[in-house]
Amino acid sequence: MDNLYVIKIGGNIIDDEKKFSSFLQAFASIKSNKLLVHGGGKLATKLADDLGVEQKLLDGRRITSAETLKIVTMVYAGFINKNIVAQLQSKNCNAIGLCGADANIIQAHKRIHPSIDYGFVGDIDKVNAEQLMQLINSGLTPIIAPITSDANGQLLNTNADTIAQEIAKAMSEYYNVQLIYSFEKSGVLLDVNDENSVIKNLKPQYYNELKTKAKIFAGMIPKIDNAFAALNSGVKKVIIGNAEKLNDLINNSAGTTITNE
Amino acid sequence: MDNLYVIKIGGNIIDDEKKFSSFLQAFASIKSNKLLVHGGGKLATKLADDLGVEQKLLDGRRITSAETLKIVTMVYAGFINKNIVAQLQSKNCNAIGLCGADANIIQAHKRIHPSIDYGFVGDIDKVNAEQLMQLINSGLTPIIAPITSDANGQLLNTNADTIAQEIAKAMSEYYNVQLIYSFEKSGVLLDVNDENSVIKNLKPQYYNELKTKAKIFAGMIPKIDNAFAALNSGVKKVIIGNAEKLNDLINNSAGTTITNE
Repeated sequence: MDNLYVIKIGGNIIDDEKKFSSFLQAFASIKSNKLLVHGGGKLATKLADDLGVEQKLLDGRRITSAETLKIVTMVYAGFINKNIVAQLQSKNCNAIGLCGADANIIQAHKRIHPSIDYGFVGDIDKVNAEQLMQLINSGLTPIIAPITSDANGQLLNTNADTIAQEIAKAMSEYYNVQLIYSFEKSGVLLDVNDENSVIKNLKPQYYNELKTKAKIFAGMIPKIDNAFAALNSGVKKVIIGNAEKLNDLINNSAGTTITNE
Repeated sequence: MDNLYVIKIGGNIIDDEKKFSSFLQAFASIKSNKLLVHGGGKLATKLADDLGVEQKLLDGRRITSAETLKIVTMVYAGFINKNIVAQLQSKNCNAIGLCGADANIIQAHKRIHPSIDYGFVGDIDKVNAEQLMQLINSGLTPIIAPITSDANGQLLNTNADTIAQEIAKAMSEYYNVQLIYSFEKSGVLLDVNDENSVIKNLKPQYYNELKTKAKIFAGMIPKIDNAFAALNSGVKKVIIGNAEKLNDLINNSAGTTITNE
């Protein structure tokens, strides 16, 4: 099977023009099959502020109202997605910008929860791996914004980490998939305040030890649990690390590499 | 050669949820190969107003400032494009939303003008007909937003009528192309105040007669001149008419049909 890198870019690097451009240069230079899932940085929050659209929180969870959905669709699937695509095209990467609705690559439904109405938030039913493979095989590099839709044509705000994970799992049927979460941190840290305490390799036994000793930053636990879930569904390797070192992450010379064995 | 309908939807119908949904139903039901080019309705102007971004005009021409470019990219390539795609998917049309940068389907450059600086406005160099054909042949229906990019990754605001025309011309090498301009008028009118005065068929000789007698509404002349230019570049037929009657436009039972002979 061919290799496929499923790369998530998150955090504030999207807001830093220079750093983001050099990330895209590194991404464009990857020779293997690849696709990019992006978040939205701070732009959506800023636009909501400028428009006076209040960000609703319920039990600490962000609620996607109709107005917020409009904003994230404009910012994620419009402004950020198309700027990434245009920049990659100028770097000789034949990018194609998509949201989950495009070519029906992701089927989702509005989140159902017994007590919280999250609003227009999507949970993923299915990734259309065959369609993504067809686009990749025709020489295109999918750039995916975290917006999906349901069977009735309703757009839905969807977590970008989850999209990357579900795509990585679905594509594992056809490729050796490496899932890379790149953001502003150097990796999974033993000491959350020390960027030099990166755990280079994380396997189930060591992870359980660290959790038992409460040595893992609580905020990272869901990310790592998701990484192991992806590995249990066929993904070969999950790498977490600094987006400014994308080439090193791919070469296994930076970041945290999570594997099952 | 197979048929291909290149359909431009413009005017205020995009702002009317019910009319627009029934237009999309008619579009989805077209059996032949098809693609859609859309404008932006009034949403971009409204968002600019809400954000306090002034719309600059110079000699009656709209100037695209950096702020306006951001707005049209968000509205056209984000909100409107993705809503069209999600609605078409729910109507069993496998739509894929694109701007000119995506898959490098349109190459453009920033408009150069001896006296007016139009700002971030794009003029088209080339339509990548082979790439569009590949997407269509794989069962996808391209939905194209009027945003392009230059070779340096700069996004550019680009006239949707021109995009439709240039795509129609380029695709004529591979398909029998019919170019349909659908909007809120019934067609080319003999009397601009009478929607019942639609000219059913317009050929060069008759058009010249009407122009000589000043019987054609001045605002329509550039559109019709463009239509004849398209016909001279291989497009088989240009149809102008009411978006609410898309099926009739395709069946030649409504609107104005412009042909060379």
